[in-house]
Amino acid sequence: MGKLLIIGTVAFDAIETPFGKTDKILGGAGTFIGLAASQFNVDSAIVSVVGDDFPQEYLDLLSSKNIDLSALEIVKGGKTFFWSGRYHNDLNTRDTLATELNVLADFNPVVPENFADADVVMLGNLHPNIQLSVVDQMKVRPKLIILDTMNFWMDNTLDELLQVIKKIDVITINDEEARQLTNEYSLVKAAAQIQKMGPKYVVIKKGEHGALLFHEDNIFFAPALPLEEVFDPTGAGDTFAGGFAGYLTETRNVSFNNLKNAIIHGSNLASFCVERFGTERMENLKREEASQRLLQFKKLTQFDIELQ
Amino acid sequence: MGKLLIIGTVAFDAIETPFGKTDKILGGAGTFIGLAASQFNVDSAIVSVVGDDFPQEYLDLLSSKNIDLSALEIVKGGKTFFWSGRYHNDLNTRDTLATELNVLADFNPVVPENFADADVVMLGNLHPNIQLSVVDQMKVRPKLIILDTMNFWMDNTLDELLQVIKKIDVITINDEEARQLTNEYSLVKAAAQIQKMGPKYVVIKKGEHGALLFHEDNIFFAPALPLEEVFDPTGAGDTFAGGFAGYLTETRNVSFNNLKNAIIHGSNLASFCVERFGTERMENLKREEASQRLLQFKKLTQFDIELQ
Repeated sequence: MGKLLIIGTVAFDAIETPFGKTDKILGGAGTFIGLAASQFNVDSAIVSVVGDDFPQEYLDLLSSKNIDLSALEIVKGGKTFFWSGRYHNDLNTRDTLATELNVLADFNPVVPENFADADVVMLGNLHPNIQLSVVDQMKVRPKLIILDTMNFWMDNTLDELLQVIKKIDVITINDEEARQLTNEYSLVKAAAQIQKMGPKYVVIKKGEHGALLFHEDNIFFAPALPLEEVFDPTGAGDTFAGGFAGYLTETRNVSFNNLKNAIIHGSNLASFCVERFGTERMENLKREEASQRLLQFKKLTQFDIELQ
Repeated sequence: MGKLLIIGTVAFDAIETPFGKTDKILGGAGTFIGLAASQFNVDSAIVSVVGDDFPQEYLDLLSSKNIDLSALEIVKGGKTFFWSGRYHNDLNTRDTLATELNVLADFNPVVPENFADADVVMLGNLHPNIQLSVVDQMKVRPKLIILDTMNFWMDNTLDELLQVIKKIDVITINDEEARQLTNEYSLVKAAAQIQKMGPKYVVIKKGEHGALLFHEDNIFFAPALPLEEVFDPTGAGDTFAGGFAGYLTETRNVSFNNLKNAIIHGSNLASFCVERFGTERMENLKREEASQRLLQFKKLTQFDIELQ
């Protein structure tokens, strides 16, 4: 079975949307990536850190999804990373109400021995130095290293970020971030620029407008499923990344054609994530439900035009 | 050969983009629709009005594309409708610098005898009363009546607009307009609402993010081709509509599957339109070029995921 090493926050989120609000619930990029990847036949591990305020029931939940937690450091007397945000009515924009780094401030990731030869490494959104440290600890060059990042690191730690970008195979960022990173408005030009920085594959996430995959002169577009209701967008991008990484780990095939499939799987899982608050929907998602919805993705874009 | 009746402005445009500016050049919804539809084997006619300041060379150009101009009224001593706009750097937003209705202010459309039995009627963006008058003049109920409109008419002539919407088969509007018309943020819900107002098919245009086709419980998504350079977006929406209408007129098949193909053709032609100022690219577009690019559309969204 393929091995997937996940780096990302395991955290508390408190979320407010037009539909309601939550207390502190399970959240974090690493959590969403892990839950999404668990939809595939993979051995996965999360490298992360929490405080001893992190409930056993959350640990049990992640373990029950076949996620190895031996590299999830639990800091005695420490507090778990906490994020709180309020979404606007259109659910496309949000205000951050609180970001408490807590134990994340001094986090030194340690890649566990049994995952130092992972097939795929998924570097969730974190300080580039943490991402870099994980890459450097790998004993065998992974088949694929995937990096997720955001504008915050472009603003504050650009040099370090560019160092990581040089060493990875796939980068996933959103359209505005791709423009910021390259000073190119056209996403086609931005993706070409980013490929020159290192990654062979560039995935540009456009939220409700889908995602684009660029590789050399090839472009593939995966739509987002048009939904009647988006309840809570938190974790959708990480779920996308987790589905993408999970599928590639299961299939251990990193061709452009298979990356196309991986993007569809990622989009598919993200469409479930937003149906409930936080991780709720992903905790209980059945594989048959996911397969069923893939049919809708196929119907959504397939056409039989005759080409002369 | 299928007959397509087009209603829409034939006009002068003056355009400013980050790449340059034009004097008064050929423009108007009817013009762009006609040029796009001329990529197909159809007999088309434009019902519209111009002043006698409208150059013979523009008339000759349209005639050379097999567009019947016998219902294009030329008002002696009148001035042609003029629009001027300036696009912002992102090319997604623009300021209107001038709108001079001129001869359009007193326009009474007259459907020519030989097109009163047209297969398809394409009602370009105009006052709903003009659109309604054309529908009422048809001797035979067309196979398909397509309506394009915009927020201006929702703001100022909503009752009249709802009257037209009741009588047509396909409406094409953009995402913001769909939301405005229905007070629904979700496009899935908005499209369902609009179908209750009359049209069996709802096309929601999302510009660079593609277009959605809704019919009962079916959804189809056509991407916009990711382009290195968008030079001038003027007329892209009308070109989309013209390609959509032209293809359906040629094939005379108004099934959901064929409407999917029509949307792809419309998106394809729109991707050419934006490559040059105004009508320039569409005036010279060869059919082989258009067919060639259709292959790119197919590659862009086709995937071979195995579905269990």
